[in-house]
Amino acid sequence: MHYFVTGCAGFIGSNLVDRLLEGGHEVTGYDNVSTGLREFLTDALQSPRFKLIEADLLDTNRLTSAMHGADFVFHLAANADVRHGTERPSRDLEQNTFATFNVLEAMRHNGVRRIGFSSTGSIYGEPEVFPTPETCPFPVQTSLYGASKLACEGLIGAYCEGYGMQGYIFRFVSILGERYTHGHVFDFYKKLAANPDEIEVLGNGKQRKSYLYVQDCIDAILTAVSHPEAQAKINIFNLGTDEYCAVDQSLDWICGELDVNPVRRYTGGERGWIGDSPFIFLDCARIRSLGWKPKWTIDQSVRRTLKYLVENKWLFERG
Amino acid sequence: MHYFVTGCAGFIGSNLVDRLLEGGHEVTGYDNVSTGLREFLTDALQSPRFKLIEADLLDTNRLTSAMHGADFVFHLAANADVRHGTERPSRDLEQNTFATFNVLEAMRHNGVRRIGFSSTGSIYGEPEVFPTPETCPFPVQTSLYGASKLACEGLIGAYCEGYGMQGYIFRFVSILGERYTHGHVFDFYKKLAANPDEIEVLGNGKQRKSYLYVQDCIDAILTAVSHPEAQAKINIFNLGTDEYCAVDQSLDWICGELDVNPVRRYTGGERGWIGDSPFIFLDCARIRSLGWKPKWTIDQSVRRTLKYLVENKWLFERG
Repeated sequence: MHYFVTGCAGFIGSNLVDRLLEGGHEVTGYDNVSTGLREFLTDALQSPRFKLIEADLLDTNRLTSAMHGADFVFHLAANADVRHGTERPSRDLEQNTFATFNVLEAMRHNGVRRIGFSSTGSIYGEPEVFPTPETCPFPVQTSLYGASKLACEGLIGAYCEGYGMQGYIFRFVSILGERYTHGHVFDFYKKLAANPDEIEVLGNGKQRKSYLYVQDCIDAILTAVSHPEAQAKINIFNLGTDEYCAVDQSLDWICGELDVNPVRRYTGGERGWIGDSPFIFLDCARIRSLGWKPKWTIDQSVRRTLKYLVENKWLFERG
Repeated sequence: MHYFVTGCAGFIGSNLVDRLLEGGHEVTGYDNVSTGLREFLTDALQSPRFKLIEADLLDTNRLTSAMHGADFVFHLAANADVRHGTERPSRDLEQNTFATFNVLEAMRHNGVRRIGFSSTGSIYGEPEVFPTPETCPFPVQTSLYGASKLACEGLIGAYCEGYGMQGYIFRFVSILGERYTHGHVFDFYKKLAANPDEIEVLGNGKQRKSYLYVQDCIDAILTAVSHPEAQAKINIFNLGTDEYCAVDQSLDWICGELDVNPVRRYTGGERGWIGDSPFIFLDCARIRSLGWKPKWTIDQSVRRTLKYLVENKWLFERG
């Protein structure tokens, strides 16, 4: 198979590329390297079956020609910064919604029929049902990030119906693991490295969140796209663990690993930022019914991520 | 109150403008007159309280300056052609999703806090629950039109949360009545005027659809936006009647009114076109709980619409 992976230099994208190459596949990676890192493709670039195209998804000509010959598109490129959406509202629209439209158009022009897409549990906004299933009551959006991902899901659905494509939509909780470059473990570690005696925590620390280890996430994706029971026109899967933790709990693990005991200063409120969900906990029965289950707990994932960051301090020097 | 109405020269927009002016309000109408008709504003233009800006929603400078001083935005401008979405997929994205983003940005720059938006029952795709309530299971999109309107709803939700706005989202069934310029009554009448002996029907004629008379629709909108029990951050309402009819049934009424008896040639299939919903029937208990109810049945609405078209044949000569 020839896979086309957008966001191939990103956290999840680069791990997926490595796994696809390990599987013997041909991979064309597409990334504008704006937040992705070439360093994450060091292994991949040694493979004769990997080709990297450094270009932007808004460059429709480059995109369309780069996709030529692909069998399957994994569209992972995105502005994944849910927290700062309101500072520049056009960013999610451009980098997520427009970019996804361009990917779908390039697929149509190249006759590529299948797409896997990284959506998010943020599209559930502030749900009333926990754990939240894929078929929960029609949610209201609370963040520009979630709204843009919802728009992408809608486009994919309409393209599958309108042009005979097949779509896999994965609604992720937050992903942890090697090559993780932003999120709460990153922020906490960065703050504690600068000052181990005191730390600012966004919100009241009681927000409950779910996390999934990146290799478990990729296992789930690869399970779904090849499973005989997931061959509908549109296949939607929550991806997460059957557990959650409080922000404070995760900070306990991090402080324990680093052997520090900072005073915690809370910014207060149930939400860490505008559009933050106080509680994210997804019902993953559907993907589990295909035989997948996560190998790592949230506790283990947080610790593995921290270990990776401790061993890769160069990530902090870059920004 | 000073209302800003996008799509003011359209079917629903122009009727809303007339009603707002009757209510003594000041109205700025914004329309690029691409599908709207200046003729629909003949009455409005005689009012000193009405101002028409002929410009496009993609012209952000004109839009932002035109909105200055408004208290409330009714955003009705849209590409409303659900049927031909797959012929030019960028149209829904540009005229619906981008345009709505521009309207929200213009509101933010002008400090306008309240928006009423014309969404659609098409965002329910092919629902499994009938009548379909606002809180039905998270739907999958089946048309580019529905997908674009879903994207608009998402943006409005995120703006309300992120910037302290208040939104009213109205999910319409198909609207009928004076100034109706496209849809099945228009098509059937046009075909029968050309050839009363034979008519082509898209699909198998058994698609079940709901309709609402335009003045009932506007009554519902005006009821909701001023109701003390509809003052949440986001207020979502289905707007329809508690009934539906088959395409064939509607054609019976039309043929009866015109006194013709054509042979019906069906294109076949449960759907009239790609993305068509075989059954649209919305649960309107929420808007009814505010005291609103429709004054006209579907049968009456179809006949009124036909009468309007018979008396306004110039509409057909224009396109």
